[in-house]
Amino acid sequence: MAKNITSREDNYSQWYNDIVKQADLAENSAVRGCMVIKPHGYAIWEKMHDALDKMFKDTGHVNAYFPLFIPKSFLSREAAHVDGFAKECAVVTHYRLINNPQGKGVVVDPEAKLEEELIVRPTSETIIWDTYKNWIQSYRDLPVLCNQWANVVRWEMRTRLFLRTAEFLWQEGHTAHATREEAVAEAERMLEVYADFAENYMALPVIKGIKTPNERFAGAEDTFCIEAMMQDGKALQAGTSHFLGQNFAKAFDVKFLNKENQLEYVWATSWGVSTRLLGALIMAHSDDNGLVLPPKLAPIQVVIIPVFKDEIQLKAISEQVLPLIQKLRDNHILVKYDTDDSKRSGWKFNEYEVKGVPVRVAIGPRDLENKQAEVARRDTLEKSILPLENLDQTIAQLLDNIQQNLYRKALAFRDSHIREANTWDEFIDILDHQSGFVQAHWDGTPETEDMIKEKSKATIRCIPFQNPLTPGKCILTGKPSKQRVIFARAY
Amino acid sequence: MAKNITSREDNYSQWYNDIVKQADLAENSAVRGCMVIKPHGYAIWEKMHDALDKMFKDTGHVNAYFPLFIPKSFLSREAAHVDGFAKECAVVTHYRLINNPQGKGVVVDPEAKLEEELIVRPTSETIIWDTYKNWIQSYRDLPVLCNQWANVVRWEMRTRLFLRTAEFLWQEGHTAHATREEAVAEAERMLEVYADFAENYMALPVIKGIKTPNERFAGAEDTFCIEAMMQDGKALQAGTSHFLGQNFAKAFDVKFLNKENQLEYVWATSWGVSTRLLGALIMAHSDDNGLVLPPKLAPIQVVIIPVFKDEIQLKAISEQVLPLIQKLRDNHILVKYDTDDSKRSGWKFNEYEVKGVPVRVAIGPRDLENKQAEVARRDTLEKSILPLENLDQTIAQLLDNIQQNLYRKALAFRDSHIREANTWDEFIDILDHQSGFVQAHWDGTPETEDMIKEKSKATIRCIPFQNPLTPGKCILTGKPSKQRVIFARAY
Repeated sequence: MAKNITSREDNYSQWYNDIVKQADLAENSAVRGCMVIKPHGYAIWEKMHDALDKMFKDTGHVNAYFPLFIPKSFLSREAAHVDGFAKECAVVTHYRLINNPQGKGVVVDPEAKLEEELIVRPTSETIIWDTYKNWIQSYRDLPVLCNQWANVVRWEMRTRLFLRTAEFLWQEGHTAHATREEAVAEAERMLEVYADFAENYMALPVIKGIKTPNERFAGAEDTFCIEAMMQDGKALQAGTSHFLGQNFAKAFDVKFLNKENQLEYVWATSWGVSTRLLGALIMAHSDDNGLVLPPKLAPIQVVIIPVFKDEIQLKAISEQVLPLIQKLRDNHILVKYDTDDSKRSGWKFNEYEVKGVPVRVAIGPRDLENKQAEVARRDTLEKSILPLENLDQTIAQLLDNIQQNLYRKALAFRDSHIREANTWDEFIDILDHQSGFVQAHWDGTPETEDMIKEKSKATIRCIPFQNPLTPGKCILTGKPSKQRVIFARAY
Repeated sequence: MAKNITSREDNYSQWYNDIVKQADLAENSAVRGCMVIKPHGYAIWEKMHDALDKMFKDTGHVNAYFPLFIPKSFLSREAAHVDGFAKECAVVTHYRLINNPQGKGVVVDPEAKLEEELIVRPTSETIIWDTYKNWIQSYRDLPVLCNQWANVVRWEMRTRLFLRTAEFLWQEGHTAHATREEAVAEAERMLEVYADFAENYMALPVIKGIKTPNERFAGAEDTFCIEAMMQDGKALQAGTSHFLGQNFAKAFDVKFLNKENQLEYVWATSWGVSTRLLGALIMAHSDDNGLVLPPKLAPIQVVIIPVFKDEIQLKAISEQVLPLIQKLRDNHILVKYDTDDSKRSGWKFNEYEVKGVPVRVAIGPRDLENKQAEVARRDTLEKSILPLENLDQTIAQLLDNIQQNLYRKALAFRDSHIREANTWDEFIDILDHQSGFVQAHWDGTPETEDMIKEKSKATIRCIPFQNPLTPGKCILTGKPSKQRVIFARAY
């Protein structure tokens, strides 16, 4: 069927763009680099939001809201941070427009220049630590465990819907602790939360690890990350959690009186995931027919399509279907019954397939006679004729089954695309001809890492937690190496 | 007890500021006019969000997300809109900072000037209608029923936490319809949703009505509003819903092919409520002891405080309390059991009172012996000794009772503060010495409305729906008037 979707084999990048468009997830706006998240895309983000928000609250966090704007001088306070973040960003310089004295429209009022420019937040460490200064006096005020759901802006030159946009939505956790140990434990705990979410909601297997200094967050002492593999073998960083040491506490002078009555700087973490996860979700599971959604993140989990010629047939079908819907809803399953008679069944089948609804139930007059329905699963495209009796339970099991199947499939794909390289030629050959992650030795220096990146366009995605310490020789320099690390080309 | 809260009688305005501070709801940030919404304040906003979001979805709306930035030229497209919104706003002129060539810190890169300035959205009609242009071709694409949860910025000179801030959080609904009638019906329906929310969740009685042309939204043909009375007798506009006619469709050239195959401009509405509602909530119910929250919007509805001297006593209390908590939670009641032994019970009593928790249960060893507990209600400050048996049911009823009592009390206060004035002297006397709303005649002209506002600082809050058409004479000019309208000084 012509779906206006390029196949993955023909052009993976175009396939991604086609899926975003045909599944009605997002589009570019009139503002360069800023996207419009359309209702179907936003509904998936809401499911992600709700699941993550519950996980954050279950681990003791509360939500708060901090300003959109950051005074320019704040960004310079933490030396590494300003290098990483202060450069490509939206700068507010004026606060008023006036009617154009030369004619039509409005112009910026030159009289309304801000004394200090404001930056639209690219991330909120600075404004938040400036706030925490007033919240924290003693160890009794610690820990502070805040999260914020917000929009942020980074002036990216090349943008792609969800994957890299000038404005995006995200959550950023910012916590303050009395000890280094507690802060490190928090950063690790939140990485576990992200890994749990990726694997159990997104059905996306991830490698947990630590970034090299080159790839660290600007201002962090350590960055932990989860790395996922897309269907083209490229890596996508799906979440990061940073141990910030006392860097921001020192930059904003945030001290507390410890139990021994001595003043100490506070220890910090920050951690975030963004609407980029929608890009990861699309690329992890979707196929040439459209979007494939794991049931736990599907805004509609089951669509029921009556196949009818007239009102009498529809009424007979509805008599069977409405009690089924009630049972499904009682079981918290999100179901849509599409009785719209202005559209043909075939059109609907296609529409829900493209949009990734995990289970489609079709039922016509003959099915009624036989007390059965046609049930199609989106992940494998298999169709079965199933009895109406206990169909709610069959569907509930099927949804579980789809969730698990998507994970298993993604895991098998990933594991079959992680390869060891022992020489530079092997390394390049894998990247160019086989795709996927490469486990290879590296001499541990930032210079070599830069050189490998320049020559191969691959970066060190992470040093996995519990990495076996098997010594070897750097693939580029031949110098000694303590362990293999994960390389890949990445989004 | 010294709570650092000024009494309402001494200084109402200071009382408000004290409540916001002592109940830990919000604070000013380092950025002029931008607030930090603290965890307790944000938790109340989340309750508001969740209740409203469900009401929007139940009336057929979906959420989406549109860009933070609006090209400057968009604001000029709708003539009235630019006058109302384009003036005091945050203007982004540059997209890069560079290291200061003259020394420390960063400066705006003069090379990185935007060709067209971007405005941080003060409201999103323009960018959304620019988007709808691509979504709407035929009557089959209508209606479009989108809502957005977002932050917006209006460069206010005088700001007050929640009531008027440069940045605030809100929702904005933007709908597109095939006919005038359908759009008007939508604008009216959403005003009903707001009134329902105000009355049944916020326990805040509101007057539904229509704004005069002077007070209309910039770009609207009609603005419907709900107006609430605060405890000082001043009015607060708690929500607005606008019938926008075809103004934005014409400005952005959004036409559709109707069933008769003819091109027509699309009809529009927009409607919004904001974090300002938190200001309304505070001022409607709170007292000189702190915040008072209606149970339906309380992040903690019941706090249980064990009064104990040692672990053995606490254990005995917990044995009774934990099953009670389970029953309350099974009934979806939000309960906190505060066993923190680093704080005295009296301190806790005060803390939860200031923060507005509707029901406090205290239980000590003697209560255990007598199979009872002390139950205090926040609205009336009454305490009762109640049997532990069926206490979960008693509490559930008490929460309902508090919700209703707050509404009844606010309604009685409001109704006793609406007065008729027939002369200018009466009008001013009521405003200056009695406070509240004034029902008075006005000659129907914008000029007189302006003059009344200038002389009295009172504005026409609305012409109530189903207003009796009782003719009279304008209080200022003596000219004939068809009906009384509602005047008040307002937030």
